[in-house]
Amino acid sequence: MNPIFADLPTTVFEVMSALARDTGAVNLGQGFPDDPGPADVRARAAEAVVSGWNQYPPMMGLPELRQAVAAHYARWQGLEVDPASEVMITSGATEALAGALMALIEPGDEVVLFEPMYDAYLPLVRRAGGVPRFVTLTPPHFRLTEAALAAAFTPRTRVVLLNNPLNPTATVFPEADLALLAEFCRRFDVVALCDEVWEHVVFDGHRHRPLMALPGMRERTVKVGSAGKIFSLTGWKVGFVLAAPGLMRGLAKAHQFLTFTTPPNLQAAVAYGLAKDDAYFEGMRADFARARDRFASGLARLGFSVLPSAGTYFLNIDIAPLGEHDDVAFCDRLVRRHGVAAIPVSAFYAHRPVRHVVRFCFAKRDDTLDAALARLSGLA
Amino acid sequence: MNPIFADLPTTVFEVMSALARDTGAVNLGQGFPDDPGPADVRARAAEAVVSGWNQYPPMMGLPELRQAVAAHYARWQGLEVDPASEVMITSGATEALAGALMALIEPGDEVVLFEPMYDAYLPLVRRAGGVPRFVTLTPPHFRLTEAALAAAFTPRTRVVLLNNPLNPTATVFPEADLALLAEFCRRFDVVALCDEVWEHVVFDGHRHRPLMALPGMRERTVKVGSAGKIFSLTGWKVGFVLAAPGLMRGLAKAHQFLTFTTPPNLQAAVAYGLAKDDAYFEGMRADFARARDRFASGLARLGFSVLPSAGTYFLNIDIAPLGEHDDVAFCDRLVRRHGVAAIPVSAFYAHRPVRHVVRFCFAKRDDTLDAALARLSGLA
Ligand SMILES: CSCCC(=O)C(=O)O
Ligand SMILES: CSCCC(=O)C(=O)O
Repeated sequence: MNPIFADLPTTVFEVMSALARDTGAVNLGQGFPDDPGPADVRARAAEAVVSGWNQYPPMMGLPELRQAVAAHYARWQGLEVDPASEVMITSGATEALAGALMALIEPGDEVVLFEPMYDAYLPLVRRAGGVPRFVTLTPPHFRLTEAALAAAFTPRTRVVLLNNPLNPTATVFPEADLALLAEFCRRFDVVALCDEVWEHVVFDGHRHRPLMALPGMRERTVKVGSAGKIFSLTGWKVGFVLAAPGLMRGLAKAHQFLTFTTPPNLQAAVAYGLAKDDAYFEGMRADFARARDRFASGLARLGFSVLPSAGTYFLNIDIAPLGEHDDVAFCDRLVRRHGVAAIPVSAFYAHRPVRHVVRFCFAKRDDTLDAALARLSGLA
Repeated sequence: MNPIFADLPTTVFEVMSALARDTGAVNLGQGFPDDPGPADVRARAAEAVVSGWNQYPPMMGLPELRQAVAAHYARWQGLEVDPASEVMITSGATEALAGALMALIEPGDEVVLFEPMYDAYLPLVRRAGGVPRFVTLTPPHFRLTEAALAAAFTPRTRVVLLNNPLNPTATVFPEADLALLAEFCRRFDVVALCDEVWEHVVFDGHRHRPLMALPGMRERTVKVGSAGKIFSLTGWKVGFVLAAPGLMRGLAKAHQFLTFTTPPNLQAAVAYGLAKDDAYFEGMRADFARARDRFASGLARLGFSVLPSAGTYFLNIDIAPLGEHDDVAFCDRLVRRHGVAAIPVSAFYAHRPVRHVVRFCFAKRDDTLDAALARLSGLA
C-alpha cells in the first residue's frame, strides 16, 4: 500500500455524516443543501436518460455542455474561452483537481497551498510527487500577505492551489489579495490551479473575481468549477475545467485516464441549466443569504461568536470565547450529546492548525436550521 | 507538465470515434453498443433523479447498490463478499483502476502487465511510480505461459494487472492460465488487480472465472467490474471494486480523493438492474453472440481471416494474409476511404507490437453490421 493514501483517516465529512445518521443528529457538517435542487434541471436529466444517448460521450464532454460553459462564463464573468480547446468536463471538481495535479506536477516540484484547505489537496499533491509549501491563513480575516507569499514561493514552485471563495472560512478574497498572488505567479512562472467551485455562492454584493481574469493569468490559470455547487445537486459530480490550450492538452490526458468521461444525461441537464438567466442565480444567492442570516443571527442570539461569511454554504463560530480550545472534542460532543453535526476547522490545516473555529453548513431549510439552533441553545 | 501524461497522444478510441463522426464512417472502433440499453433500468434512473436524493451519497456507494453488487456476485459467481467492508462503487472502472494503482503502488514497485492491454494501464502505472514488466501475448491464442511469467515476476513485483476477458483479443483465459497466474501471485506475494469488466459478455458456453475465486487469491485480489458494460450503458460510468477489507481501506482513500462519489440516481438504477435474473443476462449474451456470428460469418464470406472471439464486444481479423503488415495504415485507409472505423491492435502494445491484427466492435444493430460489411466488400 502506498502510505500517502493508506495512512490517512476517512474524510471528516464522511465520518460526520455517518455519525449524524447513526445518532439522528441534525447534519450541518458535510456541505450539501437539503433542497432537492431545481426541478426543471432534474427533469431534463430524466428525459435525457430515457430518450437520449447513454453511451460514451466525447472524452472532453458533450459539445453542447462545453458551449454552455463557455457562454456562461463569457456572459457572467467576461471570460472568453474557446469551447473546443479550452473547456473540459470532468466527473466533479475533485476529479478535475486530482487530474490537474497529476498532469502539472513532476516529482520534486513545489506546490504552494493555503491552509485551511479542503482535505483532498494535500494527499493529492503528495501522491503526485509534489512538495507542499504552506501559507497559513488565520482568523478572523484569512488574508494573503506579501510576506507569507514571499516565504512560500521559490524557484522550484510549479503550482499554487487557491480555493476562492474559500471553504471552510467563507472568505471571498479581495482583489488586492488576488493581484498579489497573480504578481507572484508571474514573477516565479507558476501555474495557478484555482478551485472556484463556490464562485456562484457569494453574498452581500461581493462579486467573484476569477483569478484567470487578472493581468497575465489567462495563460497560466487552470480554473475549476462545479455544477453540483452551482445547482445544489452535489451528488451529480459534473465539473468543468477552463485552461489555455497548452495546459489543457496535458489536463485532458489525466482526465482520459482517471475517468475518461462523465454521464451524458447529467451533462445535458447541466447544459440546460447553465443557460438560466442572472435572475435565477441571484435568486439562489438570495435564498442562501437568507439562510445564512437566519442561522447567524440565531447563533448570535444564543451567545456564540459568529465569524463573517461572505460566500460558500458555510459559516464559522469562534469557540475560544466559550473557553473551548479543542475543536475536535467540541464537535464530537456536539454531535454525540447535543445532536448537531459540525466540522472542526483544524481538519483543514496540515501544518499549523487553528483549533478554536467550528464550521456549520447553513444551506438548509428553515426548520432544519431552527432545529439545530434549539439543540445548541444553552451551550454558549 | 508531467511528461508521462503530456507526451501521450489522445486515446485511439476517441480519435477513431471523432474520425468516424467527421467522415460519416460506420463506427466499429470504440467499444459501445448502439442499443439504447435496458429501458426499465433507464426509467429507474429517471425516477431517481426526479424523486430521489441528488446530494452526496456515501463515499463508498449507496448501501442498496453495495448490497446488490454483493448479492449479484454471490448468486452468479459464488463469490461471498461483505457489502459493508469489501464493496466500493466508483465512477467507472477506469477510476477504479486508476485509484487501485495509486493506492497499491509505491515508487519503484514493479507491476506485471500483459500486452495487448487497454491503453490506460501503462500511463497509470507509470504515473503511480510503478515500473512496468511486460508479458507479451501473441495471436492466435494469447495464452499465458510459465516461462513468460517466470521472466516477468521478480521479488520487486507488487501488482499484476490482468484483464479477463481480454480486450482487444476477445480471449477468455482458461482455468489453467489463471491457476498459473495465481500460483505466481502467491509465490511472489503479489496483489492481482483484475479488470473483469467483460465478465458478463462471454459466449459459446465459456464461463467467466473470477481470479479472486482461485485458491489463495481471496485476500490478494482487487476485482473491478462495470455496470456500463453489464447493461450496455457505457456512458454511465458506474464501476465496482471488490477487495478484502485490508486492501479496501487503501483503495477507499484513493477513491475519496479521485472522485469522492458517483451520481446516486445512476447507482440506484444499477442496483435495480443487478437484481435481474440469469435469464436476462443469458438473453443479453445470446444477442451479442448472434451479432458476433453475423459479423464474423460476413467477414469470412468476404475473405477475411477472422480470429476467434470468446467474449467482449470485439472480434479481430488477421490482415497478414492480405499482405498488410501495418495495422495503423490499414485502419486509417479503412476509415477515410472505405467508411468503416476499426482499431489497430498495435495501439494496445507498449513493447513488442503485433502489427497485423485489427479489432472491430460487433455490439451493433444488424443494419449497422451489414452496412459495414457492404463497405468492406472487395477489400479481402
Ligand atoms: C465531498 S464531501 C465535502 C463537501 C464539501 O465541500 C464540504 O463539506 O466542505
Ligand atoms: C473508454 S473508450 C474505450 C472503450 C473500450 O472499452 C474499447 O473500445 O476498448
